[in-house]
Order: sequence, then C-alpha cells, then structure tokens
Amino acid sequence: MKKEPEASFSPAPRSTGRYTRRGFLAATTVGAMLPAVVNARTPRELGAPMRPYGARSPFDKAARVETVPDGLQTTGSSLTPLQDLYGIVTPSSLHYERIHSGVPAIDPARHQLMIHGLVGRPFIFSLSDLKRLPSVSRIQFLECSGNSQHEYLQPDSKTPQHAAGLVSCSEWTGVLLSTLLNEAGVKPEARWVLAEGADASRLARSVPLEKAMDDVIVAYAQNGEAVRPEQGFPLRLVVPGWEGNISVKWLHRLQLLDQPAMTRDEAAFYTDLLPSGKARQFAFVMEAKSIVTRPAGGQRLPTPGFYEITGFAWSGRARVAAVEVSTDGGHAWRRAALQQPDQLHSLVRFRLPWNWDGKEAVIGSRCIDETGYVQPERAELLAVRGLAAPHHYNGIVWWRLQSSGELVHA
Amino acid sequence: MKKEPEASFSPAPRSTGRYTRRGFLAATTVGAMLPAVVNARTPRELGAPMRPYGARSPFDKAARVETVPDGLQTTGSSLTPLQDLYGIVTPSSLHYERIHSGVPAIDPARHQLMIHGLVGRPFIFSLSDLKRLPSVSRIQFLECSGNSQHEYLQPDSKTPQHAAGLVSCSEWTGVLLSTLLNEAGVKPEARWVLAEGADASRLARSVPLEKAMDDVIVAYAQNGEAVRPEQGFPLRLVVPGWEGNISVKWLHRLQLLDQPAMTRDEAAFYTDLLPSGKARQFAFVMEAKSIVTRPAGGQRLPTPGFYEITGFAWSGRARVAAVEVSTDGGHAWRRAALQQPDQLHSLVRFRLPWNWDGKEAVIGSRCIDETGYVQPERAELLAVRGLAAPHHYNGIVWWRLQSSGELVHA
Repeated sequence: MKKEPEASFSPAPRSTGRYTRRGFLAATTVGAMLPAVVNARTPRELGAPMRPYGARSPFDKAARVETVPDGLQTTGSSLTPLQDLYGIVTPSSLHYERIHSGVPAIDPARHQLMIHGLVGRPFIFSLSDLKRLPSVSRIQFLECSGNSQHEYLQPDSKTPQHAAGLVSCSEWTGVLLSTLLNEAGVKPEARWVLAEGADASRLARSVPLEKAMDDVIVAYAQNGEAVRPEQGFPLRLVVPGWEGNISVKWLHRLQLLDQPAMTRDEAAFYTDLLPSGKARQFAFVMEAKSIVTRPAGGQRLPTPGFYEITGFAWSGRARVAAVEVSTDGGHAWRRAALQQPDQLHSLVRFRLPWNWDGKEAVIGSRCIDETGYVQPERAELLAVRGLAAPHHYNGIVWWRLQSSGELVHA
Repeated sequence: MKKEPEASFSPAPRSTGRYTRRGFLAATTVGAMLPAVVNARTPRELGAPMRPYGARSPFDKAARVETVPDGLQTTGSSLTPLQDLYGIVTPSSLHYERIHSGVPAIDPARHQLMIHGLVGRPFIFSLSDLKRLPSVSRIQFLECSGNSQHEYLQPDSKTPQHAAGLVSCSEWTGVLLSTLLNEAGVKPEARWVLAEGADASRLARSVPLEKAMDDVIVAYAQNGEAVRPEQGFPLRLVVPGWEGNISVKWLHRLQLLDQPAMTRDEAAFYTDLLPSGKARQFAFVMEAKSIVTRPAGGQRLPTPGFYEITGFAWSGRARVAAVEVSTDGGHAWRRAALQQPDQLHSLVRFRLPWNWDGKEAVIGSRCIDETGYVQPERAELLAVRGLAAPHHYNGIVWWRLQSSGELVHA
C-alpha cells in the first residue's frame, strides 16, 4: 500500500493581508467579540425529530443532469455532478444513469438469475440463494463507454459534470461470477458468457470467459444497501474496468456460449468506425483518464490565495500510478497526492496544494497508470481515431482560470 | 496491506440432494425450459424515467429504529439495521442517530466555524473558506459510547440492530483540525480544545490537544456528498476511534483551553460509576468489538447447507488484527477473512464459509486488535465494571440457531 503523504502544502507567504505566516485565507477576525458572533447566528430552537430513513439537507442541491435533454427520459443518460463530490464514493442517488428502455420496477422476491447454455448443471438462483454464497465487496468505478463524447466532438464543456460525468464509483457487494460458474460446471467448449438484463429492451452483452472467471461480480448491494433501481436493482453484473454497458443491469440470465452472441449492443452499437474503415468492436477496457473537478469550469474563485486543486483519476487497465497537474496549460507538471488506500479499478481522488497569484492559469490533469500509459491530449487521440469513434474518449480536459476568478473550458 | 484471501470455502459434499460436487444450494434446475422461466417473470413494459436525485427501491425496507421509543423524538437515538448492511460503507440514510435537542436546520451559507481562546490568531471560517484548504477523506466508524447498553443490562437483543446498532461507518471528508490549529497558532499553555455544536442544547466536549493535532477531521462531507443533517450538516468534528458524542455535530466553535471545560456532557453524563465508587470519566477510546450480523437473531435459515457467516469488527485503539468466529458457543474458534483494504478506525467486514448441518448452533465472534486485546465475554466485563457503568460495553454477542432454522439471542 502506498503511504498517503501528509497534507503537504507549502504556500508562499501572502504578500498582502493581515497574517503573513502561512495564511491560506483572508479570514475575518474579531478578537474578543468572537463568541457572540457564532451564537447570534445559530438559534436555540428545538430541531427536527429522528427519522427511520434519512435524507440530505434541503440546502444541498447537487443533481444529475441529462446528457441530451430531449424529452425521452426513458432512453438516454444522466451525468454525475463530479464537481460536487468529495472523497471517492459517489452517493448512490447521484450515480450516473444510462438506460435504454426506462428503469424497471422489479420485485426482488420474484426475481431470478438463470445460468444455462454450455454448463453441466443449469441453475436458477433466487436473491436469497445468492446471499448465502461467499461474497466480496469492492470499491469500483463504472464509466459509460460514451463518457466525454461531447469533449471529443466539441471540447467546450461548461463543467466537470458535462465533460466527464458518466463515471461514478461505488462499493459493490455480491458473489464472484466465477463462484457461480464453478458451481454450474462450465463445459470445455464454452468461451463467452452472455449476460442479459430484465429491462424491456433486454440489453445483453457477451463477456469473454477469461474475464468472467477473473473479477466479475454479480452484485446485489451498492454502498451498503440494495443496488439502486437505476443501477440494476435487484441484481447487476459489475465488470471491473470495462465499459459500463457490459455491467448488465437488472441481470436475469447468463448463458454460456462458444462465441459472442453478437447482440445489438455489441454489433450495431457500442462500436467505433476508425479512419481505416475498420470498426473497433469489443473495445472493453476503459483507458487511464482524469479530470480536475475543483477549481473547474462553472466555478469562480473569490480571491487570489491558497486553493486545493482536486479531482478524480481512474484506469480500467491497471492501478493508477500517478496523477500530474499543470496550471500553465501543460508546460510544467506537478505530481498530486493520491488518496489512500486506493484499490484497483476504483476512482482515485487526487489533491495538490496551490497558491493562485491572481493571473490567468490553465488547469488540467493527466493520469498515468501502472502499465506506463499516459492520458493523451485530444489532438493525439484524434490523430489515431478520427472523428467517427465516439466511445472511450479520454483526452485531457483544460480549464481556463481568468483573472476575474471565473473558470471556463480552455 | 494484507492480502484478501480468495473466496475460500471448502464445503463438505452434501449428503443429500441432486448435485454432490460442492453444491451450496438445493437449486432448482429445469434444463431446456430455463429461458422461458426468467422471461415469463420479467415483463417488457417501458420502465420509469431518469431522475436528478435517485432513491432506493420501494421494495427495500431497511430502517433505523429508535432505541427507546418514548415519543421524545428530538432527544434519544436510533439504531442502524446492521443485519441489512453490506460491505463497510453505511448508507448515510441509515447512519445511527443520537440527538439531544433535535436536528437543527442550518443554512450553510450563513454557518461559521470560530476558533478562539488560547490562540495567536482567532479565526472565523465560512464553509467556502474551509473547502479551499488541504483536505483528507477517510473511511471511519463512529460508535455511540452507549452502544449495546441493552446487551450490558439485559442480554436478550432480538437482532444485531438492537444489540449493537449505534455504530456506523462513512467516508468522511474535510480539513484536518491540526491544519486549522496550526493556522490559528496554538499558545504554549493550551492543552484542550472545546468543541461546541450549534444544536439548541449546544452539546460541547473537550478534546485533548494531542488528539486534536493527530487525526481529528473537521468534516463537511460524508459518503461523497454534504454531511447529512442528522450527522451534523454542514460541519461535524470526526474524532476517529473515540466515543461518538465527542465527534461534535453542527460544529460552530472551537476554543483552546488550558484544562477541560467540564461541560455537562463530560461531567454529569457520559461517565461511569465503577464498583470501587470511582467514576470513569474521559473514557474516550472505543475498545475492540464485533458482531455477527448474518446469520443472526431475528433471521431464519430455510434449509441446512452452505451459508456465509458475516459481520462487522472494529477497534478505536488499533487496527483489527483478526476476527474469530465460533459456531459452538465458544469452544472452537475459526479465523474469518477480513475485507481488504481495511483502514485504521474503519468498520471491518469479516466473512467465514460455513456448512450448517441442521443441528443447534451458537454463533458469535470476537475481535482481536493489534494491541493484542481480545473482545471479552460479558461476564469478564461485568467482573471489572459492575452494573452501573453503561458506556463502552463491548461483550461478545451470541446467537442461538435452533434446529427449526430460527435464530434468537443466546
């Protein structure tokens, strides 16, 4: 485990202001009158009662937004407000959504998971059956293969949410798929596992058997409670590090096959046309990527002085080795601290102390994973992929901090 | 980092049933008719639309319950349903509550944190000020010092929730208190930090300076979003490993003192009378503890066969070194697997594979932390503490599995 560095900021002394020692802040200080100040602000009325199931403060307004608000609310996707998140766990209520035929209302007492095809012993599992089996919990990100499509086509996203909000991270709990497949007895000729969801469109994807036997989870819980409806209640496949749509939601069927099923969602869609005329298909792994979420587009810094630069990094291929941050558009890079403990295929929170001198700055980050891969600039990606391959975009996002304190896309 | 063992179950072959190879389950198998089975169960109606802020399934009924349902809903506590949790993150909506004068409704734009007393530079921080500073995120448990009081007085709790539900675990994000104190300049004569909340009763506790400068967090976020109202929105002190009430909620004032303030909540309450006639005061640290949450009281096992025994362990003093599980009332103990990565002062999920032979069993767990401390039996604790010391109870909880499959307190 990498050691988490101490909160390692070494701000330059402020050239103006009352306190020059360290002095992050133009803090208000009123000496002996202080106790009166906070007491006057906080009334002594009796508060609200306890509740069986809590809710957030009505002052907290963080919300998902639809990617393409076109009135078709049962097919499309909605973006996580990355700029409003803290730490690495995405609140389940703010996990990004991607749906093809709405969110089905499934009674867990009636739901079943079937395993059939090239197996020695076909099985039907109820939820209670699955919960008896050996379980695992892992903090894993999910990212839609179409995340940052707007950045790819037209790099002018207003906020981190718009630039990369189709990624989220949860603690998933369930049974390893390998446990179920070992129980069912996979026949020697089996090579793929077709996973099918119980939504109206029966979204289905083929998973190579090698991955299925490795780290795939049949998850019934998310962040400590049942999987949320938009995330596949009561059962979701979680395929770590791979494009989100293969983590089939509302999972009800697993079929062992000797070849991929070539479903609509892997033959006609979730493929990319390359400049050579060839199509990229089964491009499962999400590459190393990162984004600065604060300070970032849509925000305003009230004064020069100390700020923490923070954001998320992730990689579907390997552990995040480092995140580098630049405040001058990519000339100089500094290494950020990574929140520990991290976990393979988790979002990683990075943090870097920074003193803003009040001049224009161009802020961005790049992720480097343990394969040595470095998150590319947009131009580098386009040179290889052209402009007809909208999935798996992972270019660097730059935010321009203007001397007014306003931040916009750079 | 300790390596997480593979899902390491080695169930004995079942003596009855159709499949003897491994065979966790008396699974239903219907061969070629299988696809028809799941398809018939899952209709193809268009589902619900996307939402800006999600909610759990209406089928998910997990809920907090009040410890003493006496109609005084603005003073008391409510218990987390431990038996319904998965992994280590407690859903914020199910985090245990302990309130003395209700949950205040605080406008974060008006809320302030004052630091004064024995400091060189008194400060007032707004929420936006605090969010500029170097931040940390850590997964930490909180446990009410009165947790398991019922087990102490009358060991007959019906469920894990009733036996130990005043413990929960969140990813907390905020500024280290040491960062703020360094900024304010602690005077040499300061020894304690009084932390006061903005609830009507102004709950206040004195924290020794050494702890304050170590790992205490001034937290503005919980599980990725703003701290929940019941947990101190918009600002809570998080004092890792110590009794919950010192993690002052709705935090608005920190005063540096040369001695403890002897507030009501540390002089008249949260103290324990020992058999010697002396009172135990400032008993901050929560000792090593654990509880089996499944199979456990209030549950019913439908058939003999394979089950995973699981639950939580924690210690305020040191990392959890091991959890041992017994199914025969404490004669034989087996070491459980601990979910990785764990973190000092986090809840630790333990798991043990088990084949129930259908005979009566008495199931319990004990936590051993890295100081070598072993969670005691109730009788051992009572011999030292007597029956007038209701805080910090951490005795082993035993569940009796009857041959009917019903589980009750043992």
